[in-house]
Amino acid sequence: MKNRPIGIFDSGVGGLTVFDALARTSPAESLVYFGDTGRYPYGVRSKRVIVEYSRQIAGFLERQGCKFLVVACNSASSLALEEVRASVSVEVIGVIEPGAAAAVRATRNGHIGVIGTEATIRSGSYTRAIHAIRPDIKISAVACPLFVALAEEGFAGKPATRLVAEEYLSGLVDAGVDTLVLGCTHYPLLKSDIAAVMGPRVGLIDSATEVARVVGNRLVSLNHHSERNETADHQFYVSDTPERFASVGKRFLGYQVAPVHLVDMEALQHFAEPASSDI
Amino acid sequence: MKNRPIGIFDSGVGGLTVFDALARTSPAESLVYFGDTGRYPYGVRSKRVIVEYSRQIAGFLERQGCKFLVVACNSASSLALEEVRASVSVEVIGVIEPGAAAAVRATRNGHIGVIGTEATIRSGSYTRAIHAIRPDIKISAVACPLFVALAEEGFAGKPATRLVAEEYLSGLVDAGVDTLVLGCTHYPLLKSDIAAVMGPRVGLIDSATEVARVVGNRLVSLNHHSERNETADHQFYVSDTPERFASVGKRFLGYQVAPVHLVDMEALQHFAEPASSDI
Repeated sequence: MKNRPIGIFDSGVGGLTVFDALARTSPAESLVYFGDTGRYPYGVRSKRVIVEYSRQIAGFLERQGCKFLVVACNSASSLALEEVRASVSVEVIGVIEPGAAAAVRATRNGHIGVIGTEATIRSGSYTRAIHAIRPDIKISAVACPLFVALAEEGFAGKPATRLVAEEYLSGLVDAGVDTLVLGCTHYPLLKSDIAAVMGPRVGLIDSATEVARVVGNRLVSLNHHSERNETADHQFYVSDTPERFASVGKRFLGYQVAPVHLVDMEALQHFAEPASSDI
Repeated sequence: MKNRPIGIFDSGVGGLTVFDALARTSPAESLVYFGDTGRYPYGVRSKRVIVEYSRQIAGFLERQGCKFLVVACNSASSLALEEVRASVSVEVIGVIEPGAAAAVRATRNGHIGVIGTEATIRSGSYTRAIHAIRPDIKISAVACPLFVALAEEGFAGKPATRLVAEEYLSGLVDAGVDTLVLGCTHYPLLKSDIAAVMGPRVGLIDSATEVARVVGNRLVSLNHHSERNETADHQFYVSDTPERFASVGKRFLGYQVAPVHLVDMEALQHFAEPASSDI
């Protein structure tokens, strides 16, 4: 068990921020990353569809021998975590609880802002996770759907991105949040644009680091952590456009991910039973 | 045959511009519209995947009794038209040739600009279609991937959109094109932003009107045109989020589309044979 890989999945390339944090904090662990580039983005889709896609990918990663799964997509973590847990036999964690915990630790005035995709914000997942820790915290949540496209298309730092950030975030500045959860794995790419609008007194919470810490601790407590010394082996799988994944991935990580394997989507569908009708 | 509907499909909501033009110019024709909202956008995907999705939808529309199919998506028209034609028994037209013909008629200086998604521009489909009519025309083509998200999220007319348009289009202005093909069904929503950057001397070609004219003429020449007098019956199908389709659709059309039916994606896959291995 110990030397089996950790599986990480996202709707696309954004979860590489979690991959990177995990590769740095747990260098002995082999990682298998799956980006659903043939069907991204998830943030505009329904719970029904996000659950269906997520269960297929979790099934695929379990079949690859993964000992532990990380749902690195905020939309899938918000809407499909319980369904993924029910469909595989290994432990699964999402990115919402770690991000919420880090935000609660960081806030001084008890007012936290949350930004994410339409699906994540509509789900109320961060509100529930924050209130489960401290019910007295005030939360202001805003969907920022254009941020994903701006990050993917390399518009970080451009004037258009600043204008979009002002439009989405000025309400949060006025509301007086002192902490802002970047509730989408793409948003760290726009960190400087977001920070410029929010101002120097607002702390930005990027859950990737926190998720990596939680995964590392959890593996140790399960006694499933790798103890080998040789270099870990990382694998990348996508459902479409491996070259595009590699080039956008380099923008995320600053280094090359390779090789990137293509998984046939028809085959992918056989890794999960059809979703039950009560979803 | 005459009273069977025309099928129109797009990766999402953008093809409603073609639906609208057809409903206006051929009011006796019933229309069945399919938006692949569970898997859009197509413009960032590979030929392999666009062919697979397009053949499934064409199979679905043929099974609904459609007498004629319109591929209203520029990306699918660019990359999957021949494969769709080979997979159904009814006539199929795409949006590239009609748009190219309209642009060739419009240009005075023989220099046409083409904008579209990454998939459409990379395919070279407009260049081939324009050169098939007039090989001497000079063509400048630019991918504008952010335009789809800006149109979908209601950013038409906003300063950020103007900045993005300047970034994408200033090269075309400098190059001296006198005609610009809006090679994506979403782009007519940003027409005023695009026109403001291109200036009053550049004509914008929105292929929807031209496609509607070609379809009307073709049905008459096949003797498949509807001759009934009662109101035509329109149907809308999507692969996810029917409410979102209805609300974004209203932004496109200015009127409500209803009812919007949800099609299960697992079922959709059975409407096409697996794509052949040589794609």
